[in-house]
Amino acid sequence: MNENLYKNIVSELKAVRVLKGMSQEELAGKSGLHRTYIGSVERGERNITLVSFLKICGALQVNASTIFYNAENKNNDDSHK
Amino acid sequence: MNENLYKNIVSELKAVRVLKGMSQEELAGKSGLHRTYIGSVERGERNITLVSFLKICGALQVNASTIFYNAENKNNDDSHK
Repeated sequence: MNENLYKNIVSELKAVRVLKGMSQEELAGKSGLHRTYIGSVERGERNITLVSFLKICGALQVNASTIFYNAENKNNDDSHK
Repeated sequence: MNENLYKNIVSELKAVRVLKGMSQEELAGKSGLHRTYIGSVERGERNITLVSFLKICGALQVNASTIFYNAENKNNDDSHK
């Protein structure tokens, strides 16, 4: 497994949240997860479960495949550095 | 969250494994996960973590985004039934 991929996924989630002008608290409310959980996931401190990941994607109204696609391509870009 | 989506993701993982002619044991060996873990994930008994999911995708040599994309579109097809 490319370890950067996990980081990129988490950073994509945060980027989408910020882009949509949503606070961690709002995202927590919409996804049914705790705000501190959202925070620790975004900081990469927690190994998020797939179910929680899907809840966050649902609350952000973004396709999970889009998050992954962007995260995978970010890796490719990094490999040219 | 669409609850079918999680089932579709798991079923996609299994479909790719079978398509590649890989046993659960081989997948376990390549991904560094336990064979019984693979089995319980495929039966939907476990809420897989994102890291384990990425390990399985890596071992299957399939992009995570492809698994998600197929799983999402399977949902769309089902909605017409």
